[in-house]
Amino acid sequence: MNNTKKTFLTPGPTELLPEVKAFMQDALGSHICSINHRSGEFMELFKNTISELKKLMSIPESYHVFFLASATECMDRIIANCAGERTFHFVNGAFAERFYKTAVELEKRAEKIEAPYGESFNFSDINIYNEPELIAFTHNETSTGVTLPLEEIYKIKAAHSDSIIAVDIVTSAPYVNLDYNKIDCAFFSVQKGFALPAGLGVLILNDACLEKARILKEDNYNIGSYHNFLALYENAVKYQTTETPNVLDIYLLWRVCEYYNNYGIEKIRKETEEKAAMLYDFLDSSAALSAFVKDKNVRSRTVIVIRADDKQPELKQKLAEKGLIAGSGYGKFKESQIRIANFPVHTRENIGQVIKTLHAATSS
Amino acid sequence: MNNTKKTFLTPGPTELLPEVKAFMQDALGSHICSINHRSGEFMELFKNTISELKKLMSIPESYHVFFLASATECMDRIIANCAGERTFHFVNGAFAERFYKTAVELEKRAEKIEAPYGESFNFSDINIYNEPELIAFTHNETSTGVTLPLEEIYKIKAAHSDSIIAVDIVTSAPYVNLDYNKIDCAFFSVQKGFALPAGLGVLILNDACLEKARILKEDNYNIGSYHNFLALYENAVKYQTTETPNVLDIYLLWRVCEYYNNYGIEKIRKETEEKAAMLYDFLDSSAALSAFVKDKNVRSRTVIVIRADDKQPELKQKLAEKGLIAGSGYGKFKESQIRIANFPVHTRENIGQVIKTLHAATSS
Repeated sequence: MNNTKKTFLTPGPTELLPEVKAFMQDALGSHICSINHRSGEFMELFKNTISELKKLMSIPESYHVFFLASATECMDRIIANCAGERTFHFVNGAFAERFYKTAVELEKRAEKIEAPYGESFNFSDINIYNEPELIAFTHNETSTGVTLPLEEIYKIKAAHSDSIIAVDIVTSAPYVNLDYNKIDCAFFSVQKGFALPAGLGVLILNDACLEKARILKEDNYNIGSYHNFLALYENAVKYQTTETPNVLDIYLLWRVCEYYNNYGIEKIRKETEEKAAMLYDFLDSSAALSAFVKDKNVRSRTVIVIRADDKQPELKQKLAEKGLIAGSGYGKFKESQIRIANFPVHTRENIGQVIKTLHAATSS
Repeated sequence: MNNTKKTFLTPGPTELLPEVKAFMQDALGSHICSINHRSGEFMELFKNTISELKKLMSIPESYHVFFLASATECMDRIIANCAGERTFHFVNGAFAERFYKTAVELEKRAEKIEAPYGESFNFSDINIYNEPELIAFTHNETSTGVTLPLEEIYKIKAAHSDSIIAVDIVTSAPYVNLDYNKIDCAFFSVQKGFALPAGLGVLILNDACLEKARILKEDNYNIGSYHNFLALYENAVKYQTTETPNVLDIYLLWRVCEYYNNYGIEKIRKETEEKAAMLYDFLDSSAALSAFVKDKNVRSRTVIVIRADDKQPELKQKLAEKGLIAGSGYGKFKESQIRIANFPVHTRENIGQVIKTLHAATSS
């Protein structure tokens, strides 16, 4: 592996926040990797991290936050703890499909409604037909660059108040301004919008999820062992975890949340929208390139997917020559699309360089 | 958290290897935290890590290595993938009990034989009575400081060749010189003998475990979703993982294995035994203190448990004044025992200082 100056604009893992280097040195200096997960020091860290995170993302005080290992684990744990038999999934990309597949693997009667890749759903004409215990959404589909309108998710919650509403916000947190009171649980991992090393999933949930897990356990459903919601909750109220967690990443998350809070979440959101507009404006005016997502209302602000067709390999190479590491397309679009992450770590200069490079390479 | 010079002699998380600081800087310099887990760079890292680990621990080429999030997750995954109905557990401490409890939580008919804390089992008089699909051992019981003789585990495998034999080597790896051909799977986490930040569990298993998982799945047992053995295997043969893993810790594990291999595993083992002998000799000659484990044949070389009775708080404090952070006793022994980790990271000087401090505090 060489040490060329590079900037990762991949949709996750992505570029680390430059401050992470100093935060890691602080972690080493304060022995944070050696403390016990039942110690007072760890409990203080747990408490501070949750506090900064709740502040940053306006998570209500009554909601619980659990630390898992990945967003994929969050999906697995939500399915096992929030549905005994029936789940329903909104699937318009690979990560929504992963959520659905998890339910199938855990032997639920999982149903799904599908939208073509690159599109949202026709929400005025949705038929949720299996009285699902859990309804799963992927707010920002990382594989396609489609963002679902939050109002549509809230409406479905209002119409299905007995169902648990779970929302994957993996690549929209912390930009997404979610009203947690209008959903039941949400989750993300830290190697995307938080620009941290991978290895930590964050699960946010309300008492309805815990109550559901309790009922499922009483009814002899397999809700899991050390990471069932009841075990996670029992430890979280003590500011602890069931097992020794990724303490370093929890520490780094605390520091990044604090950093973002000092910077200001509204400023982060505004800048995210401005940078996204720069990219989409360029794509809409380009003769050679276009945004994969046609409907401007559902275009992701944090993962911008570019149709580059047969020019993709050359364009990715041109970007790489400038040190700009872009993501390939996902799955069948691997060699025809380019995905550009627009997380808080990515500067206006980074996005400007991407546009300049793509423009130069396509306007000859 | 202050920055006083401290050395953690806790049985995990423990002191970081001093080299970890430089390894982390290398990780940051080579963008290892930004690479995709399906990229060539990651696959190379995966391959190198497994290669160095197999060399270090003499793991046969035919055995598979999976990266999970913790040793606790390893227990959960082993139970779900190696037993449909019946497990049998050798329980002589809190971590063996955790393994047993995991089986109960996953709705297996789990049976156990118990030995008093601080003792091994009477292996000449064992009756394994429920034709278990899985037999679970805790090689080095971190809560009590008892090590089970490997020959006894091998004998049980020979007598129950149809059962999967799983061995927790959490606090004995890489010191333990295990003959993997005489067991089926083993696991550890990296914050103990590998002196790394927590957040990575390593699971080592043979084809018999995979075959068992396949049969269980065919018979409609719930073997889990993204981390069932078949999904883990399908990715591992491509040098990949199912989800984005703790790439930083995998990188650090690679570097530490390489470091240990250069140092020499036989030298590490010899030094571990010498340091353990120093501590036990002191305890056996002390009028005020004693080793919790009476039987010298089953005394752990890597976690030494000291009976300190009512002097425990004072002695822990005296050690702390010298910057030596020792572990408390586990569970009901929290305030009457001291646990000293003797991992490769702990020097002869560290152990000498512990002895000197305890001697001075108890010989007045």
